[in-house]
Amino acid sequence: MSFKVTEDYIKDLKQMLESKDPSISKSLVGLHAADIAEILTSFDIKEVLELIESLPKNKLPDTLIYLDEDLREEVLNTLTGIEIASLVSDNMNTDDAADIISELSEEKKHTVLSNIDDLEFAKDLADLLTHAEGTAGALMAKELVKVNKNWTVLRCVKEMRRQAEEIDVVHAVYVVDDDNILLGSLSLKKLLTTPTKTEISEIFEKSIRSVTSTTEDAEIARIMKKYDLFVVPVIDEIGRLLGRITLDDVVDIIQEEADSNYQLMSGLSDEVSNDDGLFQTTKARLPWLLIGLLGGVLTSTVISGNESELILLPQIAFFMPLIAAMGGNVGVQSSAIVVQAIANSTLQKNIWRRLGRELGVGLFNGLICASVIFFYSWAMGQGFLFALAVGSSLLAVVLFASLFGTAIPWLLDRYNIDPALATGPFITTTNDVLGLSIYFAIANALL
Amino acid sequence: MSFKVTEDYIKDLKQMLESKDPSISKSLVGLHAADIAEILTSFDIKEVLELIESLPKNKLPDTLIYLDEDLREEVLNTLTGIEIASLVSDNMNTDDAADIISELSEEKKHTVLSNIDDLEFAKDLADLLTHAEGTAGALMAKELVKVNKNWTVLRCVKEMRRQAEEIDVVHAVYVVDDDNILLGSLSLKKLLTTPTKTEISEIFEKSIRSVTSTTEDAEIARIMKKYDLFVVPVIDEIGRLLGRITLDDVVDIIQEEADSNYQLMSGLSDEVSNDDGLFQTTKARLPWLLIGLLGGVLTSTVISGNESELILLPQIAFFMPLIAAMGGNVGVQSSAIVVQAIANSTLQKNIWRRLGRELGVGLFNGLICASVIFFYSWAMGQGFLFALAVGSSLLAVVLFASLFGTAIPWLLDRYNIDPALATGPFITTTNDVLGLSIYFAIANALL
Repeated sequence: MSFKVTEDYIKDLKQMLESKDPSISKSLVGLHAADIAEILTSFDIKEVLELIESLPKNKLPDTLIYLDEDLREEVLNTLTGIEIASLVSDNMNTDDAADIISELSEEKKHTVLSNIDDLEFAKDLADLLTHAEGTAGALMAKELVKVNKNWTVLRCVKEMRRQAEEIDVVHAVYVVDDDNILLGSLSLKKLLTTPTKTEISEIFEKSIRSVTSTTEDAEIARIMKKYDLFVVPVIDEIGRLLGRITLDDVVDIIQEEADSNYQLMSGLSDEVSNDDGLFQTTKARLPWLLIGLLGGVLTSTVISGNESELILLPQIAFFMPLIAAMGGNVGVQSSAIVVQAIANSTLQKNIWRRLGRELGVGLFNGLICASVIFFYSWAMGQGFLFALAVGSSLLAVVLFASLFGTAIPWLLDRYNIDPALATGPFITTTNDVLGLSIYFAIANALL
Repeated sequence: MSFKVTEDYIKDLKQMLESKDPSISKSLVGLHAADIAEILTSFDIKEVLELIESLPKNKLPDTLIYLDEDLREEVLNTLTGIEIASLVSDNMNTDDAADIISELSEEKKHTVLSNIDDLEFAKDLADLLTHAEGTAGALMAKELVKVNKNWTVLRCVKEMRRQAEEIDVVHAVYVVDDDNILLGSLSLKKLLTTPTKTEISEIFEKSIRSVTSTTEDAEIARIMKKYDLFVVPVIDEIGRLLGRITLDDVVDIIQEEADSNYQLMSGLSDEVSNDDGLFQTTKARLPWLLIGLLGGVLTSTVISGNESELILLPQIAFFMPLIAAMGGNVGVQSSAIVVQAIANSTLQKNIWRRLGRELGVGLFNGLICASVIFFYSWAMGQGFLFALAVGSSLLAVVLFASLFGTAIPWLLDRYNIDPALATGPFITTTNDVLGLSIYFAIANALL
């Protein structure tokens, strides 16, 4: 019941593949397409194509749906438009089929669409492909069960039976008028418990939450999460029912959003996967390292500008990395809170109140850290004034980094730039430079 | 159709509350409980209680379900066990009710359970409360539709009608035998399209994916995501059907997991929310800052140990923060990749191959960055040997941080410690210390 892809299983499969063992097909036939897709990611493309060859024909469409996007692109490249047309026509849902076709070149897209026999299906796909990526229109599926408000319960059940033939799971029954305008939904419970002659208009639920085809991914996710929806209907500008989006799509959106925030924070641009080549991995990381390098060069300029001070009092150098690092740490903490609040739309709109609060926390933490370092430095015999300079610099840097870390992501968001950009290497680097400037200024004044 | 909580709305509500305007109740009655819950988070507890007073009685249970946990705890503290018993008995699902009751003190739990009139409901709740937090047993709901394999389609529809009375949404119809052992599921489609005298045993789907009551949250999320499940049945050790978990719960798990990784990475321990007090916010941030401080003290020791070198050649100080910061940046990049791979269970089990790859990327990026800084330093007239020392130190630090950043989270995971701990302040700090040691060692050797 619960098969798990293990290293041993992969090893066995590799051996069977090498020795051209015909029982390989038998080994795969019982597996869920999601498992097959997972297994395929452990092989190189030549082996993947051989394995696909030995797959039972009816497993291939589902396997493609679950397959890692990069690998799928490689597989699709080896197939003709006509072959892909027959694959997507084989029981695939419109959203999955559109997903696959959208990855193809314009020319191949055309070949696929014109080779699909089921005209309704082809029309649905062509329609889905017109919507911009990242919107409800591109995410939705056309498969849904809808009934007319003027029908009786009996007719409704009959029609549902007919429509259900083409649909795996009935998530919701939508009620529309003669112009296909979405009016509401019908609960299965009502349908099961109402006399068969009752008219739908008497029993359907009129309040229904919907999104329009241009609603963006993040907003769809927010709505479905907030109101605990398993499925949400998609309408056009005048309210006509176009399709529906299910919660599993939203799970993917949430996961992608979280991954991308995490990556931005760790200084990785672009999607990076484990299987990317050396060049791609380098490309994803180098820009951030170069920003860091630039920051480092700036700090070196700040320090060299204060060389005379350093020569007089080499101790100053001892705490330079500490001051720089603490500014970075505090900055990241403050900015992460704001970024997360923006992502969850829980940011209090009053930025002044938030800045005040951050200043309070910064003052508190800054005082504690500054006292620790003051006493440490004093105890090490570095002199009262010097210890005071280090301690007060640290306090100033912590306060400054709190404000800076709070304000920057908020400002970026105001100007519609992804606030997550402000976290990670960017904020650490900026705080390095500013922290050291503060340190030298205070040391200059006190010593 | 789509109400949005705005600042203006909150302001109006605050004014109505102050002037004890009785129409406040009318303003809230049309709203979705999720919206009311969102609105309440903008008020302090005294106002929240007043607002709850003016809520229509039937809105309160749902509002409690959607309410922020901290705020809910405060509200529940003001209610008696008997009041809570009547709230949860009012149409609440078992999983939501158990969620609320689990937050109460042992004594209050007992009062609530013993004051619920519906004995079946109370039994279900008591049962749910016995499962450990973070497991399928604690997450599941008892509400489900199940049919016996020996029934006919006709009897099945009748029974479903009866069971559906108590259930909002029918996610799946489970098939069990006389001992309540889960055998499979029945698609609505089959039910709608099969003659009414057919026996269920002839038409139900025998392959079904389930979890046991002890399965952990993360594993449930992995299974439901991987196989695109909207609902998964929960069974006990011998296969008896206990309850079901729906995808909306998994959405919460994924979001929490992502948030907690993000927070660990930004140096925030514990759940931190926008509404936490100064003390709690400080508590969540201070430990990481103290770790950073300790790292800073260690770097200061490393530097002071090389004071004689610094006095001879103060230029060395110019690039100290750069070396430290770059080690941190590279370390975070490498560790983030591993942490994410572990979270998504895509980590290749062969750590040597991964270390080799990271070394390759590190060599590539390190060479680029080292060349940049070598030529910069040389161009600034700091001498060939000095430029070489800085450049080669940077290369060594990048290589070392790549290996270190890869190995540490992997090692933590091996010993069942959350690998995300290795990211953020921890890895930056460690790399600061090690980076500077390398820098001084190389400078010592070359200059």
